[in-house]
Amino acid sequence: MIGGGPGAFIGAVHRAAAALDGEFELVAGAFSASEEKSRQQGRELGLVDARVYGSWTDLLEEEAGRPRGERMQAVVIVTPNALHYDMARRALELGFDVICDKPMTTTLEEAEALCRLTREMDRIFVLTHNYTGYPMVKEARALVRAGALGRVRKVAIEYAQGWLATRLEAEGNKQAAWRSNPALAGMSSALGDIGTHGENLARYVTGLETESIMADLGTVVAGREMEDDAALFVRYEGGARGLMHVSQVAAGEENNLSLRIYGACAALIWRQESPNELRMLRAEGPEKVLRRGNAYLSAAAQEAARLPPGHPEGFIEAFANIYRAAAASIRTRMHGDAPTAQDGARGVHFIHTAIASSRERAWVDARYTPPTGAAG
Amino acid sequence: MIGGGPGAFIGAVHRAAAALDGEFELVAGAFSASEEKSRQQGRELGLVDARVYGSWTDLLEEEAGRPRGERMQAVVIVTPNALHYDMARRALELGFDVICDKPMTTTLEEAEALCRLTREMDRIFVLTHNYTGYPMVKEARALVRAGALGRVRKVAIEYAQGWLATRLEAEGNKQAAWRSNPALAGMSSALGDIGTHGENLARYVTGLETESIMADLGTVVAGREMEDDAALFVRYEGGARGLMHVSQVAAGEENNLSLRIYGACAALIWRQESPNELRMLRAEGPEKVLRRGNAYLSAAAQEAARLPPGHPEGFIEAFANIYRAAAASIRTRMHGDAPTAQDGARGVHFIHTAIASSRERAWVDARYTPPTGAAG
Amino acid sequence: MIGGGPGAFIGAVHRAAAALDGEFELVAGAFSASEEKSRQQGRELGLVDARVYGSWTDLLEEEAGRPRGERMQAVVIVTPNALHYDMARRALELGFDVICDKPMTTTLEEAEALCRLTREMDRIFVLTHNYTGYPMVKEARALVRAGALGRVRKVAIEYAQGWLATRLEAEGNKQAAWRSNPALAGMSSALGDIGTHGENLARYVTGLETESIMADLGTVVAGREMEDDAALFVRYEGGARGLMHVSQVAAGEENNLSLRIYGACAALIWRQESPNELRMLRAEGPEKVLRRGNAYLSAAAQEAARLPPGHPEGFIEAFANIYRAAAASIRTRMHGDAPTAQDGARGVHFIHTAIASSRERAWVDARYTPPTGAAG
Amino acid sequence: MIGGGPGAFIGAVHRAAAALDGEFELVAGAFSASEEKSRQQGRELGLVDARVYGSWTDLLEEEAGRPRGERMQAVVIVTPNALHYDMARRALELGFDVICDKPMTTTLEEAEALCRLTREMDRIFVLTHNYTGYPMVKEARALVRAGALGRVRKVAIEYAQGWLATRLEAEGNKQAAWRSNPALAGMSSALGDIGTHGENLARYVTGLETESIMADLGTVVAGREMEDDAALFVRYEGGARGLMHVSQVAAGEENNLSLRIYGACAALIWRQESPNELRMLRAEGPEKVLRRGNAYLSAAAQEAARLPPGHPEGFIEAFANIYRAAAASIRTRMHGDAPTAQDGARGVHFIHTAIASSRERAWVDARYTPPTGAAG
Repeated sequence: MIGGGPGAFIGAVHRAAAALDGEFELVAGAFSASEEKSRQQGRELGLVDARVYGSWTDLLEEEAGRPRGERMQAVVIVTPNALHYDMARRALELGFDVICDKPMTTTLEEAEALCRLTREMDRIFVLTHNYTGYPMVKEARALVRAGALGRVRKVAIEYAQGWLATRLEAEGNKQAAWRSNPALAGMSSALGDIGTHGENLARYVTGLETESIMADLGTVVAGREMEDDAALFVRYEGGARGLMHVSQVAAGEENNLSLRIYGACAALIWRQESPNELRMLRAEGPEKVLRRGNAYLSAAAQEAARLPPGHPEGFIEAFANIYRAAAASIRTRMHGDAPTAQDGARGVHFIHTAIASSRERAWVDARYTPPTGAAG
Repeated sequence: MIGGGPGAFIGAVHRAAAALDGEFELVAGAFSASEEKSRQQGRELGLVDARVYGSWTDLLEEEAGRPRGERMQAVVIVTPNALHYDMARRALELGFDVICDKPMTTTLEEAEALCRLTREMDRIFVLTHNYTGYPMVKEARALVRAGALGRVRKVAIEYAQGWLATRLEAEGNKQAAWRSNPALAGMSSALGDIGTHGENLARYVTGLETESIMADLGTVVAGREMEDDAALFVRYEGGARGLMHVSQVAAGEENNLSLRIYGACAALIWRQESPNELRMLRAEGPEKVLRRGNAYLSAAAQEAARLPPGHPEGFIEAFANIYRAAAASIRTRMHGDAPTAQDGARGVHFIHTAIASSRERAWVDARYTPPTGAAG
Repeated sequence: MIGGGPGAFIGAVHRAAAALDGEFELVAGAFSASEEKSRQQGRELGLVDARVYGSWTDLLEEEAGRPRGERMQAVVIVTPNALHYDMARRALELGFDVICDKPMTTTLEEAEALCRLTREMDRIFVLTHNYTGYPMVKEARALVRAGALGRVRKVAIEYAQGWLATRLEAEGNKQAAWRSNPALAGMSSALGDIGTHGENLARYVTGLETESIMADLGTVVAGREMEDDAALFVRYEGGARGLMHVSQVAAGEENNLSLRIYGACAALIWRQESPNELRMLRAEGPEKVLRRGNAYLSAAAQEAARLPPGHPEGFIEAFANIYRAAAASIRTRMHGDAPTAQDGARGVHFIHTAIASSRERAWVDARYTPPTGAAG
Repeated sequence: MIGGGPGAFIGAVHRAAAALDGEFELVAGAFSASEEKSRQQGRELGLVDARVYGSWTDLLEEEAGRPRGERMQAVVIVTPNALHYDMARRALELGFDVICDKPMTTTLEEAEALCRLTREMDRIFVLTHNYTGYPMVKEARALVRAGALGRVRKVAIEYAQGWLATRLEAEGNKQAAWRSNPALAGMSSALGDIGTHGENLARYVTGLETESIMADLGTVVAGREMEDDAALFVRYEGGARGLMHVSQVAAGEENNLSLRIYGACAALIWRQESPNELRMLRAEGPEKVLRRGNAYLSAAAQEAARLPPGHPEGFIEAFANIYRAAAASIRTRMHGDAPTAQDGARGVHFIHTAIASSRERAWVDARYTPPTGAAG
């Protein structure tokens, strides 16, 4: 693991998610650029000092130098966005599989380079778009793909957070600080941190490609360099219409990610904050509320559940499903259900296209095909 | 009453709303252009034949010819949109107060003419934007105006219906037929029928004036001449951002009108389908759920309620609050809390501006001040 | 109308409910034992002084003395419980139909006497168990009766209020004062005021007769003479099990009446505070949420609705359905869907049986058949 | 670990919960009475064959024979109830700490013996009443204990399941089979499996001791030897009233455990199926909805959370909190927040008292103090 030192949020989530099914074991880490902090974190995690490093380059080079059976197999990258590229590139070059947090890179060139390198090195690259790990998201996908809604007409995506409603980054909050610093986060704050989750989630469920977008980005809290609020119109292939609303400054909201898909005869509504249920509105009959763990669900949704109905699963279990898919990919050497480098490139392209649209105050072409490689 | 004959939906609502408080009595009507149907409806409503007419002109002229104490005082217009103008104009000219359904007219010129005529004739003109009659909408208004949210940053309005998800107008549905016929409904379907409610509701609660909009209108169901789905970005005076989503083709939705207002330190969420509660999200403390009828609410919200907490009120009671406000205006000869002709002109301007933006695929200036008259 | 003077809650609800469909017209009243207050109320309601009385006996005798076509047809009794009997008896004797609030009387003897008198005089007697007027309660009844749940196993009824969580009756609250005064309310407070609604609602929906009960009544707020909190086990004919929970001292609750019915293969859940929906849990498939106004509902539920789906109806509309049923009964001279004097006798029997069980701390026989007459 | 072989539900949950924080490592097991199945399970879990046993006695004796630093420290018992006692007794005698599923034993004598033996051997005994591990349950406890509700008046507990709505135990379902077999489950099915959770949860949150109970147990599905449905009246010390409803045959319900506590001025409502929120109804102000992970919560609730607000936690995380508390107890050699052997004895006493009350159809004394030892 690279990153995930003391005080980091997402590193601990990755470790818990990886531990849940016992398919991964944490064996080495460069948890912090400070060797001392890295070592401290390593000890808390029960690692031997010899495999805890003060720099990510040391981690990669030294682990690569170990004999096959004794070295780290896959690298998890949980650092600020701007660092992903160099780390992932070097890891791939040295023959490691890579599990990387999103957004994948800060430029499209880097993203595309990772797509190509993953293929050249014949490695597995997994991007942790964790919301696709929820069982009821998989049910939504299965229903849409099976035609249960009829032709898709409208996709409404929203991710409303309120944690940046004040200028937290100026008050010593480490999470807020790097996410609002373009040198670390890239060109975008709201879209990069949460908008790409929405984009990925909608595509995962509907399979629709984006044709054009019209974006309205804004910086609500004074003093910020990047957008903390955004709205987008989307037009998908075949004419379906999309609406995305993303905010980090919606005071009072927690992690209110929702996806709604309206088809010709029915609609699906899923909310991350009540992830165990999926509402299905129907033109011709009463609403159905589908719940995780039940025998009436698709195979994909059932396999993604660990507990019987009514015993709630949450964020960690969904995240663990990405790790489970990553383990399967690594075992079989084939990219499967987990998000790929191509998903990463699409996300980066989406961010940059939205920024361009908002600057020009105009609809822009958003068609994009990432460099081929494993299934995108 | 003009309109509201056999099979009409909204005419019966107007009558029930007017009856609830006993402040209006139905004394005359031209319920249908067919004299026979008009008479049939009149008899069902207990009117004497002498005051039931087969044409609206007869109604207005003959009632105007009656002695003061024996004639109709106010006219209620519940016909398709395109007919409103001539009826309202003549009613005002003959000295009647007017209660008119929305949108007020199909052209801005007509709307402005009614604003001026209302003033010239010193009449009361009430537009039935009924959603502003809900007690918890009045609470939202009181809270926003009192600064409970801090500065307003974002207004999210949605009105999702599914009743036109199929081409109902081609299957003999009378409601659908006139609403999708430009000759009767005007230039717009979704915006005219429900979008203007959203526009009015947001302005009623926040008091914010619109500066510019960017609209994306669409006709989802083939064969229609007008839009049945729309999304809008809005920029309000002072920089607040708005997002509006309106659809008549969201299969499975009923009358899912919602208003969310995000301020610097708190947010309000109100949904028409659960109208007795108002959620208040807060940056610094737990969410509060305010409920109709309680002593902790504003005077405006308390006065608008008829029942104790927990005994639900609904659509008719909210509509009746518009009639109650109309009765107060008529008694005092001063426009009060009820929507006015100026609100009507704003609504018509909003529709036309949105259509222009969508055609040009560009942001357009949306500033507008209707001709003065009574408070807008 | 007898009762319903200034400050009374339920009298105004009766008037609004009666007015909604225009089937009743208020023509005379004895709104208060004070002639002055009665007259004041009468004038506010637009009655001529000649038909406003200072005593209920005057009202009944003088109206009975009027010629047929000019006199009051039915009497509405909305006074404290202990007064119902004398008023209803005299009204029936004089040939009036009676609409009476619940509980019908304070003793079983009186209740049975009214059953018999109603039949002897061939009058219509309607008891306003208003919750049975909700469209989705009628849907529940239709589903249970049609066997959609399989055999009924469990009935869970709850009515939780918090308005008497403090000793309001000692602070000048008129409503609280009479309801906690045995001389006016009878032997029971919580069961009489709200428990009988629960008993009636469960029987209306399931059709099950009670065989035995075990009650646990309590007086939570010191200084009260009657119970303000109660729980009951119920055993129905055929073995179904029941659980009832009633409280007036559940601080924070408003009018949280709920009914849940569990059958062999499905369950129904209805809550008065969200009356437009009915949840159906199913053993073999996803939950369904049925909503008022839709074409997929039973005829009974559709006929009881006034508005399209998604435009909420509430308490007054449900109450108005009782009045609509009363009007039908009066017109046809046959008791129909509205609660009858027999329902009233069952309610009174239920209260007295529960009190006996709680005193004896034992299960007691609760089988009861009221004196026949019109359909019970 | 004893039990938790192929197909067992709760064993896998224990393992995931223990793994989540990395404070426990699974080192040995007797997962099944079949040596082959045990070994198969052990291999899947990555254990060396040498430490996987075909009988629990072998596991305990052989592990006890290992040198201090190399042997298992604590035993987890996840077998059918009737086996708990012998296993736990022997484990304690051999010096192991014990983590045991509930109900602790099938007789009160056994339960009390374990209380005493735990103390004599100076061991840690943790009973996995996992619902007390939820952060918002800890918040409820903190609020009640701090007096935020005023004096507690009413405790309403419900645990409704539908999984035994049909005779699943006759259809080859292993879980259902042992739970409905008195030789394995003990005297009780519904109370033993889920009722004791309710009893423990109510006591954990309120701290109230039970004085008397009146129970109504029933066997709804024909062919069963034990109750599958139960209702109880409870009287707590100081006069608070309780109501418990437990069912395994409520068709359509999943794991609908809820706890409501009504005090003199406010009430709390918590539902396991929406575990991240805690509703607080208030007599004098709007309802508050408290959510996991927020800074406004008590220290106990904050410490029990792993994720920021809005990222849902669920059943496994709550279960892991019991393991975290167990780890703390084992490290410090002091019983802390985790449920103890005394809690187990109370649960067994509760079951037996309820059965006696239901048989006698009478209120029975339920006061009970388990043998002292560590804090109960």
